[in-house]
Amino acid sequence: MEHTKIKVIDYDKNEYIIKEYLKIEKEISEIDSLKIRWIIIDGITDINVIEDLGFLFGFHPLVLEDILNTNQAPKYEHYGEFTFIVLKKVIWNNEDKVFGTEQISLILGKKYVITFREQESDIFNPIFDRIMIPKGRVREMGADYLLYTLLDIIIDDYIIIQETINETIELIEDKLIEEPHIEILHSIYKLKRNIIEIRKSIWPVREIINKFQREDQILTSEKMQFYLRDIYDHIYLINDSLQNSRDIITGMLDLYLSSVSNKMNDIMKVLTIISTVFIPLSFLAGFYGMNFLDMPELKSPFGYPILILLMILIAIIMILYFKKKKWL
Amino acid sequence: MEHTKIKVIDYDKNEYIIKEYLKIEKEISEIDSLKIRWIIIDGITDINVIEDLGFLFGFHPLVLEDILNTNQAPKYEHYGEFTFIVLKKVIWNNEDKVFGTEQISLILGKKYVITFREQESDIFNPIFDRIMIPKGRVREMGADYLLYTLLDIIIDDYIIIQETINETIELIEDKLIEEPHIEILHSIYKLKRNIIEIRKSIWPVREIINKFQREDQILTSEKMQFYLRDIYDHIYLINDSLQNSRDIITGMLDLYLSSVSNKMNDIMKVLTIISTVFIPLSFLAGFYGMNFLDMPELKSPFGYPILILLMILIAIIMILYFKKKKWL
Amino acid sequence: MEHTKIKVIDYDKNEYIIKEYLKIEKEISEIDSLKIRWIIIDGITDINVIEDLGFLFGFHPLVLEDILNTNQAPKYEHYGEFTFIVLKKVIWNNEDKVFGTEQISLILGKKYVITFREQESDIFNPIFDRIMIPKGRVREMGADYLLYTLLDIIIDDYIIIQETINETIELIEDKLIEEPHIEILHSIYKLKRNIIEIRKSIWPVREIINKFQREDQILTSEKMQFYLRDIYDHIYLINDSLQNSRDIITGMLDLYLSSVSNKMNDIMKVLTIISTVFIPLSFLAGFYGMNFLDMPELKSPFGYPILILLMILIAIIMILYFKKKKWL
Amino acid sequence: MEHTKIKVIDYDKNEYIIKEYLKIEKEISEIDSLKIRWIIIDGITDINVIEDLGFLFGFHPLVLEDILNTNQAPKYEHYGEFTFIVLKKVIWNNEDKVFGTEQISLILGKKYVITFREQESDIFNPIFDRIMIPKGRVREMGADYLLYTLLDIIIDDYIIIQETINETIELIEDKLIEEPHIEILHSIYKLKRNIIEIRKSIWPVREIINKFQREDQILTSEKMQFYLRDIYDHIYLINDSLQNSRDIITGMLDLYLSSVSNKMNDIMKVLTIISTVFIPLSFLAGFYGMNFLDMPELKSPFGYPILILLMILIAIIMILYFKKKKWL
Amino acid sequence: MEHTKIKVIDYDKNEYIIKEYLKIEKEISEIDSLKIRWIIIDGITDINVIEDLGFLFGFHPLVLEDILNTNQAPKYEHYGEFTFIVLKKVIWNNEDKVFGTEQISLILGKKYVITFREQESDIFNPIFDRIMIPKGRVREMGADYLLYTLLDIIIDDYIIIQETINETIELIEDKLIEEPHIEILHSIYKLKRNIIEIRKSIWPVREIINKFQREDQILTSEKMQFYLRDIYDHIYLINDSLQNSRDIITGMLDLYLSSVSNKMNDIMKVLTIISTVFIPLSFLAGFYGMNFLDMPELKSPFGYPILILLMILIAIIMILYFKKKKWL
Repeated sequence: MEHTKIKVIDYDKNEYIIKEYLKIEKEISEIDSLKIRWIIIDGITDINVIEDLGFLFGFHPLVLEDILNTNQAPKYEHYGEFTFIVLKKVIWNNEDKVFGTEQISLILGKKYVITFREQESDIFNPIFDRIMIPKGRVREMGADYLLYTLLDIIIDDYIIIQETINETIELIEDKLIEEPHIEILHSIYKLKRNIIEIRKSIWPVREIINKFQREDQILTSEKMQFYLRDIYDHIYLINDSLQNSRDIITGMLDLYLSSVSNKMNDIMKVLTIISTVFIPLSFLAGFYGMNFLDMPELKSPFGYPILILLMILIAIIMILYFKKKKWL
Repeated sequence: MEHTKIKVIDYDKNEYIIKEYLKIEKEISEIDSLKIRWIIIDGITDINVIEDLGFLFGFHPLVLEDILNTNQAPKYEHYGEFTFIVLKKVIWNNEDKVFGTEQISLILGKKYVITFREQESDIFNPIFDRIMIPKGRVREMGADYLLYTLLDIIIDDYIIIQETINETIELIEDKLIEEPHIEILHSIYKLKRNIIEIRKSIWPVREIINKFQREDQILTSEKMQFYLRDIYDHIYLINDSLQNSRDIITGMLDLYLSSVSNKMNDIMKVLTIISTVFIPLSFLAGFYGMNFLDMPELKSPFGYPILILLMILIAIIMILYFKKKKWL
Repeated sequence: MEHTKIKVIDYDKNEYIIKEYLKIEKEISEIDSLKIRWIIIDGITDINVIEDLGFLFGFHPLVLEDILNTNQAPKYEHYGEFTFIVLKKVIWNNEDKVFGTEQISLILGKKYVITFREQESDIFNPIFDRIMIPKGRVREMGADYLLYTLLDIIIDDYIIIQETINETIELIEDKLIEEPHIEILHSIYKLKRNIIEIRKSIWPVREIINKFQREDQILTSEKMQFYLRDIYDHIYLINDSLQNSRDIITGMLDLYLSSVSNKMNDIMKVLTIISTVFIPLSFLAGFYGMNFLDMPELKSPFGYPILILLMILIAIIMILYFKKKKWL
Repeated sequence: MEHTKIKVIDYDKNEYIIKEYLKIEKEISEIDSLKIRWIIIDGITDINVIEDLGFLFGFHPLVLEDILNTNQAPKYEHYGEFTFIVLKKVIWNNEDKVFGTEQISLILGKKYVITFREQESDIFNPIFDRIMIPKGRVREMGADYLLYTLLDIIIDDYIIIQETINETIELIEDKLIEEPHIEILHSIYKLKRNIIEIRKSIWPVREIINKFQREDQILTSEKMQFYLRDIYDHIYLINDSLQNSRDIITGMLDLYLSSVSNKMNDIMKVLTIISTVFIPLSFLAGFYGMNFLDMPELKSPFGYPILILLMILIAIIMILYFKKKKWL
Repeated sequence: MEHTKIKVIDYDKNEYIIKEYLKIEKEISEIDSLKIRWIIIDGITDINVIEDLGFLFGFHPLVLEDILNTNQAPKYEHYGEFTFIVLKKVIWNNEDKVFGTEQISLILGKKYVITFREQESDIFNPIFDRIMIPKGRVREMGADYLLYTLLDIIIDDYIIIQETINETIELIEDKLIEEPHIEILHSIYKLKRNIIEIRKSIWPVREIINKFQREDQILTSEKMQFYLRDIYDHIYLINDSLQNSRDIITGMLDLYLSSVSNKMNDIMKVLTIISTVFIPLSFLAGFYGMNFLDMPELKSPFGYPILILLMILIAIIMILYFKKKKWL
């Protein structure tokens, strides 16, 4: 689609410099030892850009393959010199009420961070802002802290999505109690599918942060431990919430099915009661509508009023029987 | 909402002193080395109070963030000098039959405990009472024991809630056997949701106590091990009970659905039997109500009595058939 | 309720002495170094007895608390000098078909065992008998072996209960295949609840025996390992059987629901077939029962016989259709 | 029942000797140091035989208890000098389509294997054959290899049973798609119960082989590792297959229930359509069958043909409505 | 069936040589120390070929047994000198919409790889191509890398199958929302069975790769770790996707059942409403069709119009009642 955009941000306590490139140039890998460099690659359609960059920095061929393949599960790989992380950013499509994901690959080196996005978006803007503030914490800390802020901002989206899910659940619940309808069932099903998809893209991240904490003693300073544990706690919370949502949805489904069958029963009861009351009465009416020449009841002057009384009696007995059975 | 309340209690074997502050003052962090200090912060709306306190004691920024964010899962973090714990106190709203939670953050230092509550409540009163008793065990032991009593009192609420759940289950069971009704289904659903919510706030605490036992050798004396294991056992018991409650609720749902379908069947049986008995009879009545000029049965003097006998016969055969099929 | 009963049994290879006390006396803790002492406390209503005993032997306050609180999960705690175990004995109430539990606390010291029961019962009688036999194995071995026989006898009750459950399952199965009835559903539900309750009281025991085996090298001799593993295997077997029972119950529930819906279908089929056969016939009868002055069919001498033939034809076609659809 | 049979087979590379005994004699424990001895005890009704043997070889009393108690889960116990294994052989009863189990206990010593069966059967015959072959592998290897062949032959039966289950599943599936019937439900339920029972007797064997591999360095040579791992893989495969069978059965149950409810719906649809078409028509017929003196329609010469047209119209509209609703 | 085909490929950086054999010859095991040898055995019907090869290379008899037995779960076995792996290649039968598997056994030695296939197929063609390219990576690396490419190509098929499953799910979903039909249920069931089968053949591979990574330090170079981890990640992704598919299928089943029951309810509602409206009206019509001599209503000139009004009134009340109940 669009052309791949290359942007390089160098910063330290005192200043920050932003440069844009049209193709990978040698100077991109020449990092000022006193600065932190953030290389942003937006759009991964141009394979040459990725391969040139990989050649410059000496990345393993599998890394480049993973960056280009967006149909990838989140993963973490430690390659000594650098650490490679693939994450999924969640995107909420409000029209279709469907969640999608976008792949973001991150490479952390000693003095640099490289991010690869499927396309340009505004997700990194808050971090740009923080870098531009002269005395912001990002400016004072290393590349590992930049990576933390990136992870944090990606994970935060999951928290927002989780809240959207919770709101949707409450919305469906309200409708459910009011009036069960087949549309609600479709909403429940859609929600369940969404949760399965989201869980798939967040679940492995827990293990990723875990490994990152344990294995990356070289690239991350000791202070980072608390920050990584904080992210780990967030993911734990999201996973837990998603699990709870699934449990609640199962409950809602039971409630829906029961409500529908309950309503059905109410309808059936009315049918049964009206039918069973009138069936014997109708039979009697039909009976005395027969055209036999010799039906003595028809000629008796008491025939008609007695029949009416009999019919009333039958109706009353029927209704009392239903009352006793608690069907009315 | 309300103003944040700051209360400081110093105690040792011989005496206890209670002071209230309007804002964080330097002397709050100056702890008498022979005394234990309990700092109580009620209401976390005033961010300045939290930040000033954090600055005084040198707490990590993530700790302050966690205290202020009440939408937090229970967590435990050991920061060398101090240990930070976030718990959820359960609150039972008897009107709506819904459980809520309130966040309580606890910080344990060598000689002090700091507690943060969302608002003032009477949950700590029993501990105040125990501190006021001259020879109470709290007065003779360290800050770690004070923390234990705080944990213990928060966990105890879960036990009470669990009992409330068990009572609710028995109540619903009784109603269920008596008469299945859609209201019961809503109660079951509500109960299930409540259990999911409670479990979410108690489940991580198990791991917290576990970590606390293993990692906090500096801040907790050896004697504390038995106390912590005791709390651990309580949480285990609560979790187990909640799990059992869920299993029982699943069983109740099956019972409800089956009871409803059973009742439905009874109704349908009556409809079927009455219908099937009368349908052929009504047909016969209708048949001889036809106005053909030449229907010999109508003119025969035996027509009418024979038809009546035939109808009785059909009814008897039908009923015998149903009896044989065990539908009656 | 009743007064707490205190009984002390001293034994060695040569003799055994049984003494009863009305209150805790100092000599209870003075154990003859050549003998094994078994202290039996029946009834835990008298708090003084428990506290006096705890003071004499120097038990931790949490131990006394746990003994008195019968609403306790099984637990194991090793306190160096002694080991504390809480178990649940199962009691089968044959009238209500409900299982209950009674708490039994056990303390194992170097030369003594103390047992606490909620009330006197005959569960320990087989052990009394074994102690009275001059050359019984109990008499020749240490306090740890006495504890083993106690554990063994408590666990054995679970095996018996498990067999009762299996028999109940087979009973319900037989009824189920014969005739599905709402009563069976209540039995299934009750059984499921019972299994949940029993599992709750036996499940933690596995871990208890495990810990006991690993941690108690001081109080238990090496020979005990095989005996403890034997108990462990029994508990494993019980747990497994309970799990299987639950699976079978789930299957029975499905079978019940399907049988009911199957019966329902049979009824509905009869209704449908009779209705659908007679509805068109009744319509025809009604049709020629109309009183229009000018209905040529009524006046035709062939009208009546042709109609009868038509009706028979319709009935035959209907029945053939149902036969083809395999509804008959 | 029958008398316990005692058979002793001694073998080495050069020869094999088979002896039968009526009771345990001292020479049974006197093993030629150059030969491997296999002692076969068939029938465990004669307790004396077991106890005498146990006394001769110095087995732990718990071992003898376990051999005699056939209501036992599979177990493994390493007693230094010897290793004790309890397994369950599966027996397929083709008439009742029910699986049963028979307990086989095995004791492995340095130069001997003892097997205990509930009764004589032909399961060991292939091994007898292999021992009788002069250059068979069994003859050249130690007691541990004999044990392996015994384990292998017992586990092989499970594989055969698993295949029987798979065939049964396919048989039921075929019937299910053809015509859902309550008998199929009973078959499914029976199959599920059988799988639960089989799984109970094979599941613990995995752990047994695992322990055997790890702990028995003295009694088993290094070469045995591959053989044991091979058995382990077989058990893994069986367990996995059983788990899959359960999943498939769950699916079949869903399919059955849905097929039944689908058929039910078809029947109901026919009832509904015929009823709803004829109900208004029958009403009209009944209406003009009324005997009011003054009903102008009856006297009009167009009354009858117009009514017929009206009835046809109503029927057509009804059918079109159902077509639109896709009920036809 | 067909004759076993033997093909030997020797390659190094400079050249590659392909030879075909009709039977196993001694030179097959004489590997040029500077080259990598790939021995391809297609068709395992000829037991002699396998046994001769096993004898030449000194393979364990269990290895040969496993190669010949195609009813095998995936397995991994490390035999010091060589490593033995059994995998299942998935084959998609597009006509029956059923997945099948073919067994591929692989043996990795220091300088050689041997592959055994059930029959010749084109799965290895891409690897042949890569070997024929002069500067391909395969040509420059060891036997371990050849094994990696083989594993990779087998696992890749699972990814394709997983995509086929996802497409099938979406296809069924679309049909499901449009119109629930019993055919869809059969598709869902078939899909579920397929997933169970696929999962069975891919699930153990995860553990295999894991073991391979840990245990095979001798046969695999350090560089291989990244490649193996890459395969591990793919398997993880497949397993995860299969699990998700199963969850989605469960949801679809619920949706199907609910849709069917929903449609059923719609039909029943129509039946009920039409029935209950007309039943009282038909009764009235029947009532005034009776032939009593003395029915004053029939003679009154207002009888007929009043009855018509009454009937309209009853119909309106009925319909209003249903509207209020939200059945219309």
